[in-house]
Amino acid sequence: MSELRFDALRGEEVVYAIHRQERTFLPSREHCPLCPTHPGGPKTEIPFPAFEIAVFENRFPAFEAPRGAAEVIVYTDSHEGSLGTLSPQRADALMWVWRHRYAELGAREDVRYVLIFENRGVEVGVTLHHPHGQVYGYPFLPPVPQHELRADERLGGCALCSLLAGELDDGRRLVYESQAVAAYVPYAARWAYEAHVVLRTHRASLVECDAGELRSLAAALQALVRGYDALFDTPFPYVMVVHQAPTTSAAGEAAGGGHVHVEFYPPLRAAGKLKYLAGSEQGAGTFIADTVPEESAAALREAIALAA
Amino acid sequence: MSELRFDALRGEEVVYAIHRQERTFLPSREHCPLCPTHPGGPKTEIPFPAFEIAVFENRFPAFEAPRGAAEVIVYTDSHEGSLGTLSPQRADALMWVWRHRYAELGAREDVRYVLIFENRGVEVGVTLHHPHGQVYGYPFLPPVPQHELRADERLGGCALCSLLAGELDDGRRLVYESQAVAAYVPYAARWAYEAHVVLRTHRASLVECDAGELRSLAAALQALVRGYDALFDTPFPYVMVVHQAPTTSAAGEAAGGGHVHVEFYPPLRAAGKLKYLAGSEQGAGTFIADTVPEESAAALREAIALAA
Repeated sequence: MSELRFDALRGEEVVYAIHRQERTFLPSREHCPLCPTHPGGPKTEIPFPAFEIAVFENRFPAFEAPRGAAEVIVYTDSHEGSLGTLSPQRADALMWVWRHRYAELGAREDVRYVLIFENRGVEVGVTLHHPHGQVYGYPFLPPVPQHELRADERLGGCALCSLLAGELDDGRRLVYESQAVAAYVPYAARWAYEAHVVLRTHRASLVECDAGELRSLAAALQALVRGYDALFDTPFPYVMVVHQAPTTSAAGEAAGGGHVHVEFYPPLRAAGKLKYLAGSEQGAGTFIADTVPEESAAALREAIALAA
Repeated sequence: MSELRFDALRGEEVVYAIHRQERTFLPSREHCPLCPTHPGGPKTEIPFPAFEIAVFENRFPAFEAPRGAAEVIVYTDSHEGSLGTLSPQRADALMWVWRHRYAELGAREDVRYVLIFENRGVEVGVTLHHPHGQVYGYPFLPPVPQHELRADERLGGCALCSLLAGELDDGRRLVYESQAVAAYVPYAARWAYEAHVVLRTHRASLVECDAGELRSLAAALQALVRGYDALFDTPFPYVMVVHQAPTTSAAGEAAGGGHVHVEFYPPLRAAGKLKYLAGSEQGAGTFIADTVPEESAAALREAIALAA
């Protein structure tokens, strides 16, 4: 079982999940636990010879019922590829899986916030290369969604709606636009090639999105990932997170805030150069960036167009 | 010049210092800019053939007057070694240099917070191996000291004094004690071998410390760094930050809060295994730890004793 401890100095929960220290680390391709189980072959996490998308509870969970949840979402039964190389139909189906996991975990009394995310690349600590993401159901409201709720209060309405309007108006940092979705390097990006993919219409969660919006979101995410890979002509490492509304607490407290957006935090500040979180980022909480968002956006916009 | 932008979603400033992209990166030993300038040899940052401790403005600054400061503190003119291997006299002198830089930068109208720090090891992005640290003078109050001020409010007094009393009372996480200083792995450590070195008596800044306290602090830091190096029998990477009271703002707003403590964030969670900040840490702001602070403290306490 994992344990929560409150850090009184920073005012946040820290999660201890000690069994994770022993988790599977970069197994060889033949021992990939996310590949299908072939007759006569080694038994993997998925006891079927083929599948489209698989979801199961993480064997090395940060959270476990009845105090939260941790699941794995495998995008494909093919060991190779990425979110960018899935067929459009599969990427679209993934949005429906995200929507389903948000709805199901969010309905649980022990889950206060659902975070869908993907860590890609050894640079961000990936332990399995097979294309996959994860879902955490937090039994508390974590700091980042707390900040987003405070931003709504400060701006007197949905912060994402205001920020999106500002980015569309300015235009210099936009990298992708479709009827339902816009993507931009935010005005105050912490990471050189940080990008936010935002639903144009206010939608608190994927549950509120219609089929066309989910399809547009999938297309935007795929275009962005292919653009990233084209940028330095190499698979681009990133942390991708889906931010939606907090869910109802055990006390029945109503969920508030939220506007579906997907944030990408890529650790590369230039080809082959990583940004490290050091004295200022860790000790002061202030990011020092080496690049100008407008310039990164121009490069990323061009890469997305090239990869389209 | 660097530029500040306010991230409305997270409610924090981000600093853009684009000239830093071109900074010196791991030069060969003969081209170390922090070594002394020998007659007939290449000109370094320090135009003297020998020195004890050198302080100068960072050539690739995150902040520049009159909107903050960024300085380098070179611990020794020897290219080898670390904070742990300095003579006790030199380490003591370093505390007086820290005190001086805090007092001088903190007195400036454009500096609201002084952070003294050291990044050690390529794992945290070090670009120069010569033993050195840095000082940033922030023209605003960054998030982490803001959290510490809020902790004081929440706990109704100095948060560090309460936390220290709790750790001394519990005892399981203490790793070092002397008359003036105690060090512990905090109850809610984010990093496996995180340690906080705290003045026993309430001191808002190093300026309030007497000579004996500064000497004790230096001894504690050296004992801890030597213990870290003994832990896995390898130079231990870390980010070290000195937290003190915020300084008076340009508007003359009085400084409040603060209790001198030095925090170490080492990225290793086991020998040869790095902790990465990925989906949960970046996207939710919640650290997932693989280790129990009491067990890390026992190992670190033993390593410090062995290295003494």
